[in-house]
This record gives sequence, structure tokens and C-alpha cells, in this order.
Amino acid sequence: MPIVTIQQFPRPLEQKRELARRITEAFVEVYGTKEEAVQVFFSEIDGEGWAKGGVMGCDKTDK
Amino acid sequence: MPIVTIQQFPRPLEQKRELARRITEAFVEVYGTKEEAVQVFFSEIDGEGWAKGGVMGCDKTDK
Amino acid sequence: MPIVTIQQFPRPLEQKRELARRITEAFVEVYGTKEEAVQVFFSEIDGEGWAKGGVMGCDKTDK
Amino acid sequence: MPIVTIQQFPRPLEQKRELARRITEAFVEVYGTKEEAVQVFFSEIDGEGWAKGGVMGCDKTDK
Amino acid sequence: MPIVTIQQFPRPLEQKRELARRITEAFVEVYGTKEEAVQVFFSEIDGEGWAKGGVMGCDKTDK
Amino acid sequence: MPIVTIQQFPRPLEQKRELARRITEAFVEVYGTKEEAVQVFFSEIDGEGWAKGGVMGCDKTDK
Repeated sequence: MPIVTIQQFPRPLEQKRELARRITEAFVEVYGTKEEAVQVFFSEIDGEGWAKGGVMGCDKTDK
Repeated sequence: MPIVTIQQFPRPLEQKRELARRITEAFVEVYGTKEEAVQVFFSEIDGEGWAKGGVMGCDKTDK
Repeated sequence: MPIVTIQQFPRPLEQKRELARRITEAFVEVYGTKEEAVQVFFSEIDGEGWAKGGVMGCDKTDK
Repeated sequence: MPIVTIQQFPRPLEQKRELARRITEAFVEVYGTKEEAVQVFFSEIDGEGWAKGGVMGCDKTDK
Repeated sequence: MPIVTIQQFPRPLEQKRELARRITEAFVEVYGTKEEAVQVFFSEIDGEGWAKGGVMGCDKTDK
Repeated sequence: MPIVTIQQFPRPLEQKRELARRITEAFVEVYGTKEEAVQVFFSEIDGEGWAKGGVMGCDKTDK
């Protein structure tokens, strides 16, 4: 622990790498967690697997 | 909020579109939630990623 | 399957009862799922366990 | 219920088949659950979707 | 990894202790995972937070 | 989106407040997400609901 699961649109590896680094750093600095204890999972989903306001992401015109 | 995560077998987009619409409508009518606050995630998994009664979906004969 | 997990603020039982009924009905009508196959989990969280826009729910003035 | 969701690296079907069988057996023997009530979901993620200690799995040298 | 999340009715500690031991053992024997890498989370929910077949657990007569 | 779910031991509100602020900031700066789109859920669990290496948290002597 802690285990962090992120539901998001697909992102390039370099952005996920940087985000995981910063989130881990936040746990270390704010909670005093050991770095190795922090795990981050990226659960990526595209516009055919997600809806907001009852409209699928792939159908939105103002995404 | 609310965030709705659905674990299911893969389904065609038009069925997910209709389901997301109806689930969102249910939140609006029953909870009084604003439509835009409802997000639905479809986490689709096939018969090689799911088991029931100790038997993988892909091995079932009476699915 | 399907398994539906809802992350939401705490709600009265009668609202959850009605919502579960309507969500289940949506699966039966849209997917043709058997009613008994649909399970709904309510994962309720209060304003001390949720943040939006970097602000905890309990600190919001315009919730 | 119970619903078991496993976040893991991808594994061959035969290993998942055996694991699901053993986990289900554990519920039946320890909790007295009916076999058919146990569902297991494998949420598989590769080294580009998971980080530990702030380092993506695909960047680790000592995985 | 692996991370195991179990959605279940509340159970006594001694049953969860035995179940966690057996699930961990299954990963070690079937996947060859190191014991320390296996984490199990029990997400317990009662009959007011779960529905099956559109009926809340607390309303069922044949639970 | 993104939706961030954190499985962790219980923590004081002020630590969660600071963590949510920093995680949200990371999404804004790394992904260019709008601040309001980021939601963080804290799913807190104690030593009777979590096991590592087959041992419940409440039974560990070297936690």
C-alpha cells in the first residue's frame, strides 16, 4: 500500500512515466511512505468504453 | 460523482450507448444528480479473463 | 456478470433500492441479461474521502 | 458475491485457469460459499501500465 | 503485484486470515510469485450496499 | 476523467487534502487536464481488511 488505480484516456508512455513519478513523490513527501510501497496502475479506456452525461466519449462533439 | 464501473463481456457500441443513457437517466431521476456529473466506465473482459464457479468463461459449455 | 460498482456519496436505502432496480432493468432490456446475473455494489464515500479539482468534498462551498 | 478482481501482469490461460480453481476452492472451504457464487476477474496490465516506486514496469532493470 | 480486491459480505477476521493465506499460497505455487508481492484487500459490504437481480441484499428472503 | 482511486490505510484529513491537491496538480501539469476533471477517491482500509505476503496487517509485527 498505497495502491493507486487511474481510470483515464490512453496517454503516451512518457506522460505516464512522469505522472507515476510525481504521484509517488507526493506519497513519500506527504505520508512518509517508502517509495517502493507505492504502486500505480493505469487503466486506460477509450471513447467507446466511457460515457459522461449519458453520452459516449466517441459521440461527443465538444470533448 | 457518481462514478459507475461496469465489469462485463464485450458488447457492441450501440448497446453500451443505450445502457449508459439509461443508467445516467436513472441517477438523474432517482438521485436528482446533474446529468453531467454521471460517468460510466465499461471494463470489458472476455472468457479468458473471467471465471465463475472456478471455471474460466472460455471453458464453459453452458455459458 | 455484469458487475456494477458505483462510487457515490451516501444515499438513503430507498434511493439505492430504486436505482438498483432500474439499472438491473436496463441490463435486462438492453443486453438481454438474465436478471439474476446482475449485481450492483454501492461504494459510498463522504466528503472526507473524495476530492474534485484538488479540493476535498468537505471543503467545498458550492457542493 | 464474492467478486474477486486481480490486477496482475499477463499470464497464460492455463495458469489463470488453475488459479481461479484454487481461489474458488478456498472460498468454498473457508467461507462455505456456494461454488457458483464466486466470480474471478483478471485485470491484466503490462509494464507500460504499471509503476512501482515511481518507476514504470517497462523501465525496471530488476523486475 | 498481484493485487487482489475481494468484494464480499463482512466476515470474521479468522476467516479472512485463512482466506488471505490460501490465496497467497495459490499465487506462489501457480505463478511462482514471491509471497511478499501478493496483497489482498477485503472490501466488505452489507445488504444495504449490494443488490442482485435488482433486489437489495437486505430485502431478500432467500439470501 | 481521470478518476483516481487510492487504496490505503486511514490517514488524517489534512494529509489527504494535501495529497489530493498534489495529485491533481500533477495531472494538470503533465497531461494538461482541466483541474475540475480530476476526481480522487480515498478507499481506506485497516489492518483487518488487508493482507501482504499472506499475513493480515493486524497480525504483522514489523508493519
